Amino acid sequence: MTHPRPDIHRLFRPRAIAVIGASHDREKIGFKILQNIVTAGYSGAIHPVNPKGGEILGLPVRASLAEIEGELDVVCTCVPAKHVFDSVRACASRGVKFNLVITSGFSEIGNAEEEKAIVAHAREQGMRILGPNIFGMYSAAAALDMTFGPGGIVPGNVAIITQSGALGLAMIGKTAAENIGISAMVSVGNKADIQESDLLEYLVEDESTLSILMYIEGVRDGGPLVEVLQRAARVKPVVAIKSGRSKRGAAAAASHTGSLAGSDEIFEAIMRQCGVLRAESVREGFDLCKFLARTRTPRGRGTVIITNGGGIGVLATDACEKYGVSLLDDAQDLRATFGPVTPSFGSTRNPIDLTGGATADHYDRALDAALANDSIHSVVALYCETAMFDVATLAPMVAQNYARYQDAGKPIVFSAFGGGDVESTLGRLSRDRVPIFSDVYDAVHCLGGLYRHFENFAHPLRRSDEAPIDLAVVGEILAGARAEGRTFLLAHEGRRLMEAVGIPLPRSRVARTLEEAVRAAEEIGYPVVLKVVSRDILHKSDAGGVALDLENRDEVIDAYQAIYRNCRAAVPAANISGVEVSEMVRKGLELIVGARRDPGFGPIVMFGLGGIYVEVLKDVTFRAVPTSRAEVLTMMKEIRAFPLLMGVRGEERKDIDSVVDAVIRIATLIRSCPGISDIEVNPLVAYEEGEGSKAVDVRVLLAALEEDGTDA
Amino acid sequence: MTHPRPDIHRLFRPRAIAVIGASHDREKIGFKILQNIVTAGYSGAIHPVNPKGGEILGLPVRASLAEIEGELDVVCTCVPAKHVFDSVRACASRGVKFNLVITSGFSEIGNAEEEKAIVAHAREQGMRILGPNIFGMYSAAAALDMTFGPGGIVPGNVAIITQSGALGLAMIGKTAAENIGISAMVSVGNKADIQESDLLEYLVEDESTLSILMYIEGVRDGGPLVEVLQRAARVKPVVAIKSGRSKRGAAAAASHTGSLAGSDEIFEAIMRQCGVLRAESVREGFDLCKFLARTRTPRGRGTVIITNGGGIGVLATDACEKYGVSLLDDAQDLRATFGPVTPSFGSTRNPIDLTGGATADHYDRALDAALANDSIHSVVALYCETAMFDVATLAPMVAQNYARYQDAGKPIVFSAFGGGDVESTLGRLSRDRVPIFSDVYDAVHCLGGLYRHFENFAHPLRRSDEAPIDLAVVGEILAGARAEGRTFLLAHEGRRLMEAVGIPLPRSRVARTLEEAVRAAEEIGYPVVLKVVSRDILHKSDAGGVALDLENRDEVIDAYQAIYRNCRAAVPAANISGVEVSEMVRKGLELIVGARRDPGFGPIVMFGLGGIYVEVLKDVTFRAVPTSRAEVLTMMKEIRAFPLLMGVRGEERKDIDSVVDAVIRIATLIRSCPGISDIEVNPLVAYEEGEGSKAVDVRVLLAALEEDGTDA
Repeated sequence: MTHPRPDIHRLFRPRAIAVIGASHDREKIGFKILQNIVTAGYSGAIHPVNPKGGEILGLPVRASLAEIEGELDVVCTCVPAKHVFDSVRACASRGVKFNLVITSGFSEIGNAEEEKAIVAHAREQGMRILGPNIFGMYSAAAALDMTFGPGGIVPGNVAIITQSGALGLAMIGKTAAENIGISAMVSVGNKADIQESDLLEYLVEDESTLSILMYIEGVRDGGPLVEVLQRAARVKPVVAIKSGRSKRGAAAAASHTGSLAGSDEIFEAIMRQCGVLRAESVREGFDLCKFLARTRTPRGRGTVIITNGGGIGVLATDACEKYGVSLLDDAQDLRATFGPVTPSFGSTRNPIDLTGGATADHYDRALDAALANDSIHSVVALYCETAMFDVATLAPMVAQNYARYQDAGKPIVFSAFGGGDVESTLGRLSRDRVPIFSDVYDAVHCLGGLYRHFENFAHPLRRSDEAPIDLAVVGEILAGARAEGRTFLLAHEGRRLMEAVGIPLPRSRVARTLEEAVRAAEEIGYPVVLKVVSRDILHKSDAGGVALDLENRDEVIDAYQAIYRNCRAAVPAANISGVEVSEMVRKGLELIVGARRDPGFGPIVMFGLGGIYVEVLKDVTFRAVPTSRAEVLTMMKEIRAFPLLMGVRGEERKDIDSVVDAVIRIATLIRSCPGISDIEVNPLVAYEEGEGSKAVDVRVLLAALEEDGTDA
Repeated sequence: MTHPRPDIHRLFRPRAIAVIGASHDREKIGFKILQNIVTAGYSGAIHPVNPKGGEILGLPVRASLAEIEGELDVVCTCVPAKHVFDSVRACASRGVKFNLVITSGFSEIGNAEEEKAIVAHAREQGMRILGPNIFGMYSAAAALDMTFGPGGIVPGNVAIITQSGALGLAMIGKTAAENIGISAMVSVGNKADIQESDLLEYLVEDESTLSILMYIEGVRDGGPLVEVLQRAARVKPVVAIKSGRSKRGAAAAASHTGSLAGSDEIFEAIMRQCGVLRAESVREGFDLCKFLARTRTPRGRGTVIITNGGGIGVLATDACEKYGVSLLDDAQDLRATFGPVTPSFGSTRNPIDLTGGATADHYDRALDAALANDSIHSVVALYCETAMFDVATLAPMVAQNYARYQDAGKPIVFSAFGGGDVESTLGRLSRDRVPIFSDVYDAVHCLGGLYRHFENFAHPLRRSDEAPIDLAVVGEILAGARAEGRTFLLAHEGRRLMEAVGIPLPRSRVARTLEEAVRAAEEIGYPVVLKVVSRDILHKSDAGGVALDLENRDEVIDAYQAIYRNCRAAVPAANISGVEVSEMVRKGLELIVGARRDPGFGPIVMFGLGGIYVEVLKDVTFRAVPTSRAEVLTMMKEIRAFPLLMGVRGEERKDIDSVVDAVIRIATLIRSCPGISDIEVNPLVAYEEGEGSKAVDVRVLLAALEEDGTDA
């Protein structure tokens, strides 16, 4: 029996908490956590629990949970691993809602059974487990620092979910040093029960959280995670640092968290599908979250660069292209706006070059002009140290203009490059949360992140599209293969599967007589291909059992007779059951459509350039299933070969609708048939518009059976 | 008549200098430069020149050059633009060797004529011009700061050449703030005369220069630059920041320096050819140069990561893959080395995880073990702030280990992540030139740069390969086209050109009778293609003038007769001069080989995947010419489709030698025939090994004629 799950909000706003394993020893985690809870100012009831009793930090220590009265929302468990299960049992029967299991020594070192048993017991009793193997969590909403970190967390608007304990602990000091305010920080550790998706349900709604940073090594809750991320990213920016992106890194990650890191290409594509921003390094992640938590969404894509140096202007222009920031291009508007405030040797082309002679006053006037112009939606302001500009005026100039831009809701980022005074000014401004960077690439990277996030609003959450497929027939085909002890489909089963799914195939018939063969060819239309059908002839071509490109009745008759003659000569004992007459597949664009069950994300679909290029060019992309026709179109645009679908060099545009349809059908199949683990249509040959596309070859692998021996 | 050019060493080590336009006004450039010269401690003779006379900074001011006795190696000119030419004339006739023209107002604002005239005059007199439009130069070898920058340049081992004045000036403060020592810094401005290549000739030999940073917006001296860069990068690391890499950035660069920025793909490929490291941002460039100037080349590729946090270990592993750092993989060796110094919960797999319990002592022992192991060639040491590690011990631990690694010549980089104390420790160590970074990606980036540089030593400078081509015939073909007023070649001229160059074509003959056609077909070998030859029939296929895939004598006879019949019916008045009998081109791998004259780099050659994919996938790469067979092989490996050449999915390996040969022949052609501006063989169809490759289609554009009307 499963109890109802407690509301995740309660984890972040508990009314009463207990620390099991609270310690008198100042060096112990059981003391440190209690100390942080007390110091950070949590106002609910705090109950240290330790059989020894006594008092810690002025709080009476309870010998057991039984001594505590009233409801207990959250318990923090930091007893040795061998006592954890007992403690969990006690909490569960006491009606505790959430149990933070700090203790390590479970699945991360191979002890997965104990972990599973603990979670199973907790779930049954309606208690949820965070961890094990975590450093705890912090919630600004409750002024609750339930971690064994260094303390001193600055409350604010960035939420952090981290799968790495050591990195998370170090983030506490680092965020404080950089004055990045935290709304919540959660260590998820082994993720035995509570997953990122559960925490996001709270963070999406938490009004004090204005941006979310996730450090992920491996995904476990793919389906729910994709669902909540799609919603979350349309409410507030979500940034993911995914480590283990390299093959070797993935192996390192797996060894230290006991979680399987999926392929990085899949992760990358699915984050795009969700509208999540990907950061490569921790620095990038912090920069984005700090900036995005404080910056309103721009009203449009018109960005202007204002600079006192041509060189950094050019660098910023490059950076804008790299990070997807569009520069305003209206020469007339730019001249009208900046002409009056630009010196004669300067430039009103974007970048606006105020020249090396610019002072704070020149910047003020140019930034005024940009602020007043409604077709300018965001600004990159660059400063190179010059003798003409009094560095003492840099800080007020930047701070005042930033404040005005903030008030007006117009995003602005700064970069300042120069000597020690510039560096220290920059450090102070940055600590005051002004987006200012020494390197122009870092500045533009932030603005680029804002625009990537901005795109989420342009694309409303897409509904999921499915296609009708004949599940009864699919079930029959799988059952047939299972009955023969196979975990893959034979060619004719694959063809039948495509029919049941509704993806067109080259036309084909089996003819048992010459007359049937001619009739089949006439019905299919010339040119056709003839192939012998015989389970005794393995190598059809070698036996002379194949004839290609037959263009008329006479050629079919000749070929039919030749095939029988050749095959009887080659394999005298062969039992020939007929000849397969097939449409000769015309040349078209060779694509690949596939689907599989990812260990992290569950059912995913793949699309890309097919044929022999698929392995070499790896020009493919992925989506989590379910997906929509609109999303599949976006997906198509991600492959480098997309122009081939649109038609290049005088070639016709391909029948894109039919390709989208094939992707949706394969996506529907993988989602509705747990019996299938992998399916790959390669090539799917796409023809000109109106002429559809055809699945020329298909490979299907079956999943390991469910315990009850069924496929679903 | 051209005088011999002065030795470039003299520019960096002048015995006597003058400043023309020296000023009494402390706000003027003419004062600032003199002040920097005096302050930095230049020990040669310093002559301020100003008609007003008097004394500046204790130095007697000369009214004119005539008043100065003895040789003058370098003159710094900072008079208004309209007086520059007069000053140049005076210097030239005075025998000045180098003239730094600080003054702006020349080609960068469209005044290119004056600039050209100045340079032409100077060259004739044997004087060289740096600039115009520069902030000057600094040379540590002469303790000479001849810039109008802020002063305070820290002498050291990094040389900087910058095309941007504002950025360069700001670099003076920035390098001082970061304690990056400078051996030389040169502002090249409009590069009217002295180019990067000239300066590199000195910097390659200058022993105090241990790494070279170039900020480039556009290349002008491609040939000499490539030549000297190839030499330089085999002596010391060279890092290039190329701005204007985006299309828009290139436009911005062109507008502000008056130089044409070439395509970024070409620049990128040619820097690879030279062994130059590319940095995207100024930060990356500084990080690399600072690190590379102080780090000896590693003895091998075995890198070990040592960490106290799993998460950053995984991030570093990802970064190693990104930046081409190979992690040591010998589990047994790693266990033997690190087992004794790693806690029981840690890991001796690479990354070596000392766990969150690690202290400075644990690091010392692990770093000792890594230092002692000769199969470990470099180390990435990572630190995440923990409660167990006393931050006060961080600085000495890092500094001492760094010193020991330096002494042993084993490269090491550090990353430390944590709160304010960690940050300030890191800042201090970094100022002491210890390679330590807050972000692991930045640390590994440096090590990756070292390994990229290291590769230069594995590849000795390649000799240039050329192929014999029949230049007389090439000249004839071009002359024929010129005579008809064309700037492109016709199909048959292109075919003849390929023959003269020695690149195989599909076999082909023109037959004037049926007998000739049959004989041609027999000689060429079936299958063949027949095409009508008639200048009156434009659309050969429409007129029934083409027959494909003829497999025997009978089919050739039928087709020949049909072609005559069809064409006479379609175009009764046509003068039919015969039928072209060609080899039917077999399917193979379609490649593209091209060459052109780049405005910056001069003759360059291109190689990549051909056919319709060339435009869509842009899977091509470039090299400056001359190049070598070995370099062309390296070039081939750069394209994504390279595995197709090696044979995938059971396909045969292609005849790579024949493709290399075609590239070398096209490279030789573009180098030896200035009359050709562009040539593109697409497709060059490559067959299995031993079967060569064939130029199926070729397009050739002719260059604008030289003034004397010749092609060379």
